[in-house]
Amino acid sequence: MGSIYGRVFRITTWGESHGGGVGVVVDGCPPRVEIAEADIQFELDRRRPGQSRITTQRGEADAVQILSGVFEGKTLGTPISMMVWNQDARPQDYREMQDAYRPSHADYTYDAKCGFRDYRGGGRASARETIGRVAAGAIAKKLLRQWEKIEIVAYVKQIYDLVGEIDPKKVKLSQVEKNPVRCPDPQAAQKMFELIDKTRKEGDSLGGIVECVIRNVPPGLGDPVFDRLEADLAKAMLSIPASKGFEIGSGFSSVLMKGSEHNDLFYSSKGRIRTRTNRSGGIQGGISNGEDIVFRIAFKPTATILQPQKTVTPQGKNTILKPKGRHDPCVLPRAVPIVEAMSALTLADHYLLQRMIFM
Amino acid sequence: MGSIYGRVFRITTWGESHGGGVGVVVDGCPPRVEIAEADIQFELDRRRPGQSRITTQRGEADAVQILSGVFEGKTLGTPISMMVWNQDARPQDYREMQDAYRPSHADYTYDAKCGFRDYRGGGRASARETIGRVAAGAIAKKLLRQWEKIEIVAYVKQIYDLVGEIDPKKVKLSQVEKNPVRCPDPQAAQKMFELIDKTRKEGDSLGGIVECVIRNVPPGLGDPVFDRLEADLAKAMLSIPASKGFEIGSGFSSVLMKGSEHNDLFYSSKGRIRTRTNRSGGIQGGISNGEDIVFRIAFKPTATILQPQKTVTPQGKNTILKPKGRHDPCVLPRAVPIVEAMSALTLADHYLLQRMIFM
Amino acid sequence: MGSIYGRVFRITTWGESHGGGVGVVVDGCPPRVEIAEADIQFELDRRRPGQSRITTQRGEADAVQILSGVFEGKTLGTPISMMVWNQDARPQDYREMQDAYRPSHADYTYDAKCGFRDYRGGGRASARETIGRVAAGAIAKKLLRQWEKIEIVAYVKQIYDLVGEIDPKKVKLSQVEKNPVRCPDPQAAQKMFELIDKTRKEGDSLGGIVECVIRNVPPGLGDPVFDRLEADLAKAMLSIPASKGFEIGSGFSSVLMKGSEHNDLFYSSKGRIRTRTNRSGGIQGGISNGEDIVFRIAFKPTATILQPQKTVTPQGKNTILKPKGRHDPCVLPRAVPIVEAMSALTLADHYLLQRMIFM
Amino acid sequence: MGSIYGRVFRITTWGESHGGGVGVVVDGCPPRVEIAEADIQFELDRRRPGQSRITTQRGEADAVQILSGVFEGKTLGTPISMMVWNQDARPQDYREMQDAYRPSHADYTYDAKCGFRDYRGGGRASARETIGRVAAGAIAKKLLRQWEKIEIVAYVKQIYDLVGEIDPKKVKLSQVEKNPVRCPDPQAAQKMFELIDKTRKEGDSLGGIVECVIRNVPPGLGDPVFDRLEADLAKAMLSIPASKGFEIGSGFSSVLMKGSEHNDLFYSSKGRIRTRTNRSGGIQGGISNGEDIVFRIAFKPTATILQPQKTVTPQGKNTILKPKGRHDPCVLPRAVPIVEAMSALTLADHYLLQRMIFM
Repeated sequence: MGSIYGRVFRITTWGESHGGGVGVVVDGCPPRVEIAEADIQFELDRRRPGQSRITTQRGEADAVQILSGVFEGKTLGTPISMMVWNQDARPQDYREMQDAYRPSHADYTYDAKCGFRDYRGGGRASARETIGRVAAGAIAKKLLRQWEKIEIVAYVKQIYDLVGEIDPKKVKLSQVEKNPVRCPDPQAAQKMFELIDKTRKEGDSLGGIVECVIRNVPPGLGDPVFDRLEADLAKAMLSIPASKGFEIGSGFSSVLMKGSEHNDLFYSSKGRIRTRTNRSGGIQGGISNGEDIVFRIAFKPTATILQPQKTVTPQGKNTILKPKGRHDPCVLPRAVPIVEAMSALTLADHYLLQRMIFM
Repeated sequence: MGSIYGRVFRITTWGESHGGGVGVVVDGCPPRVEIAEADIQFELDRRRPGQSRITTQRGEADAVQILSGVFEGKTLGTPISMMVWNQDARPQDYREMQDAYRPSHADYTYDAKCGFRDYRGGGRASARETIGRVAAGAIAKKLLRQWEKIEIVAYVKQIYDLVGEIDPKKVKLSQVEKNPVRCPDPQAAQKMFELIDKTRKEGDSLGGIVECVIRNVPPGLGDPVFDRLEADLAKAMLSIPASKGFEIGSGFSSVLMKGSEHNDLFYSSKGRIRTRTNRSGGIQGGISNGEDIVFRIAFKPTATILQPQKTVTPQGKNTILKPKGRHDPCVLPRAVPIVEAMSALTLADHYLLQRMIFM
Repeated sequence: MGSIYGRVFRITTWGESHGGGVGVVVDGCPPRVEIAEADIQFELDRRRPGQSRITTQRGEADAVQILSGVFEGKTLGTPISMMVWNQDARPQDYREMQDAYRPSHADYTYDAKCGFRDYRGGGRASARETIGRVAAGAIAKKLLRQWEKIEIVAYVKQIYDLVGEIDPKKVKLSQVEKNPVRCPDPQAAQKMFELIDKTRKEGDSLGGIVECVIRNVPPGLGDPVFDRLEADLAKAMLSIPASKGFEIGSGFSSVLMKGSEHNDLFYSSKGRIRTRTNRSGGIQGGISNGEDIVFRIAFKPTATILQPQKTVTPQGKNTILKPKGRHDPCVLPRAVPIVEAMSALTLADHYLLQRMIFM
Repeated sequence: MGSIYGRVFRITTWGESHGGGVGVVVDGCPPRVEIAEADIQFELDRRRPGQSRITTQRGEADAVQILSGVFEGKTLGTPISMMVWNQDARPQDYREMQDAYRPSHADYTYDAKCGFRDYRGGGRASARETIGRVAAGAIAKKLLRQWEKIEIVAYVKQIYDLVGEIDPKKVKLSQVEKNPVRCPDPQAAQKMFELIDKTRKEGDSLGGIVECVIRNVPPGLGDPVFDRLEADLAKAMLSIPASKGFEIGSGFSSVLMKGSEHNDLFYSSKGRIRTRTNRSGGIQGGISNGEDIVFRIAFKPTATILQPQKTVTPQGKNTILKPKGRHDPCVLPRAVPIVEAMSALTLADHYLLQRMIFM
């Protein structure tokens, strides 16, 4: 279980960090959606390591191959299989992992679960697994754009104590892509870059907050009980490695408001029902209301650091882990396209479900 | 879609706030789990309105009936159907809802989704739907307790700006149940009670934070990719009405730590592998590590307030909503058993999945 | 697992033969489908025991209650909960079942599976469970009729060696309902009735074949791989108690044809693509082609007979089972509405899935 | 939808007959199952075209690659991705398919479903899709053999009017593999071979019956309601291209027996509960009883024949289809490993589900 996501737009990702490759199969994508390898590659390039000196240096082109499901530039309605070969796997960098559980990684828990593990890297908990998600998400994005002009923009809102000033209503992809931090506030981005670079040199790591806005969502997507749109987004976001929290609209700050302050009052504008404020974050009672969907995800500092750490061996003996090789001092810039992909997959699923009901 | 939760321990809830009744069918509960109506009723009584003057006054006994699946005090392995009749439905209190969308409720979005609505109350988005969850959760709790002594305790951590001081490691159900606020810090509870009561008289409402701890979880529950245990808990929590955010372990505060501070170092103790700190919140790489699972949920102030609010009619005309009748100034005390129920359902599902793999 | 059927039009049945009642929850029925209790009751009356002297005499009205999901005569898009109370349970008739496994029943296998059993009747394998299916099927039928004029007619084609002559293209529900055997060939029906009645007096039982035709199915329902429409129909039919085989179109007799005889040639008629013959049974490559869907189900003779039978006790000792009470000498007349219900549920599910893709 | 099979042991197949390749991802296979590429390749070689002159001559090695999920000869518990590259695709052979719907193929229905089609071959309805099933089935077989010594043997029972005499209790894989027809009765096999070869030269095709026996199944697999083991086997078999019918145990012949003849009487032997006869085919009330599971599948004559046929163009004009190239005069020998694979997948799924309940 666990490598299939979605109910009708369903993806299955596969691949370990150090096997033959990684990939995804998309089952349930409707026919006649225009798609090209370039659409997929664009997103994979945003996720890829080595984009700048502040990300991990694993040097792979991550060139995608579409193996099925697309014909003459359009989806066939059949499963879309996409893959990327592993090239720069360096199992020797991970040798010590065989003898020591890395703190705050999945090594120990995976052993506890399965009793058998590929010790050459993070296995399925590796960031490399997210390649499949990003490739599938690129297709979901195309579908949402072609059918409803739905637009998804995620960006780095905060790194450590540095907070960007960004207006979710106006921010554009081009602004996000202007700097390697993916923070569309250029001043904050510069400071963040410097902090990440300094932390990298110290062999340490940083966390932060990614914010995501989804525009042009038609009212009616989602469900009032278990499959609330925000519940599915929460699951999607907490399934991203290193995420520790999720909040939508007013989120945790709603706690300090009273109902009379917090409620979003309705008004009528050009034949559409709108809300004056958007504390709901675009979703009410589990269902989209047509306002922008806005949410935030907290990411912890990366677990891999280049400092010695106390830990134990699989046999339970005390030991010191002395990591060598590469590390990713801050995953947030590369998490941005993953957040977008998981958002797109979640919305595409709900969008198709809603078509059954009303269209 | 949307009223079924779980993959192998699956529940289906049914019922509107003003139909004949509400209920749940549990499919996939293993045979030979001891269960009695009293176990279910205990939890329903905690969820029930009218427990004190600070909760909504809808006066219903919510007496559960087990209609199938239990024989001579034990589960049969067949679907367990449980229901509660609606008694104190007062559709007349909701008449105005036919003519005005209540702000920050699901009235408008449900209409947008389905084009047809039972205007007599909140329909499926009503808190009354959670009766089925709590009844099913009581069974999941029994299973977890009988097989693994797993214990789930939730409590009110914060109301508005009042924060309780509670040690998640030690807090007990009996302490939580000692006061109507369900905050196990008695001083804070008293202040919270007074604030809620004051707010109730003003016709306004309050939000807050519920914290939940799960103890004695064996290592190995969960999955490294989409069905991470924390991802499923996040979905479960965000599916509870009025929730706006979820965080696990260090959560949003992890952002202000560096990796060298945040990592949970392993050590060995009495043949078990433990962590010195628990910033992971009991889950690493999506899989339980045997430490306490600790998470928090933000609840917004209740949308129903007894003050006039600007809104629109279903036809899009401006109007003023003047609510009358009852309101629930703070849902948190009653949300506590729902949080526990959803936690229990999520863990039972993962527990059974793990049995396939290893036991 | 096992009591949920369907992917998007999903039903959960519950109830043992001797618990409080039996019922079903329908999740995923779209809103605005017209439905009345009379629609459900009509189908339940066809399934009910005691319709004539050739069926089991358990005397229950099986009066359905709709508990949720329907408002002002239309579905709300929320779960539809329906139930029937058990009234004529006679556990004393089943006392001997506690001490002897009934041959060709599920007593032994259920014990082997679960290690615990309600010995008062057939439990979940009881025909009584099918009440929930028939109630849910009545809703699926309404949906199919309202949206596409799809019509489902099943009937008894054969009892033992007596075969009715029936033209699937023309047969109507009213003809089927004209006699208690539900065979629309009146001469054959009369002989069947006499044979069943004679067999009943001998305490023995009979099997036979039910044929089902589905008309006005739009081309395009179904899927080319696992979820072929005929594969889902096969599962649906083999899930009915006492069924032993399924065939579609030419079925087993296709074996004696060559490809040049068997292929259905296409032609064009009034702007529609049709086939000259219908050996495909209305489905090609897993997908409906617009011709009538025609299939047959073999039912074994009922396992319950009123003759002594050699068997063993749960402890493995040899014993003689001497059944008393009532028995159903031939289930086929009552299987007819169940076959229709399962067909309707299967088609409704595929119909909604196809709406996502193309409509 | 439609390319995922199973509930907990879940496979996703992908690939068209003329895309880059075909493959499968297995999600939910437990860790520590021994598996080698040779195990997979053995089964693929049995399914491969060109094994003798009586099968289609598409000449491909179908060499499998395991891309993930297996490490040091054992499954990791992570998704197992396997693929085979397409090599001998000859799209030119299929050019005429662009202009004429092939009778009793899926060309027309796929167009009706999706409005867009890869006209270069059968797409997803192609036999080539079954490569993924056979590869996944090889893994399921290993699991069943390693954990329970479960053994699955399928064979050709009948071709046209030629029936083999085979005792399902004793038949062995080695006997099945002795001749290219895969009929373990050597005399019948010889006649079948000659008939198929003659029919091949005539450009015509033949159908027949495959029988399958599954031994050493522990009692308790399956479920009493929708997910009956025979229901899931029926779906599995009717999902195989060209299948038209399924029967288990006494099957359609049960119709001509009375209950007193048909019931399988229990007796006790060496501490096990057994049945004297096996008309149930190893399953009672949806659950395995420990006897051999025996069932049969009817396959129609292959739709592709090398004779001119009347048909229509996609625009609805009358035309004559003059096929050229290769054809498979009888699919049954190659269907044998597919029947085994689908049986293994279905049993592995139920086996794991049963582990949750009882082991």
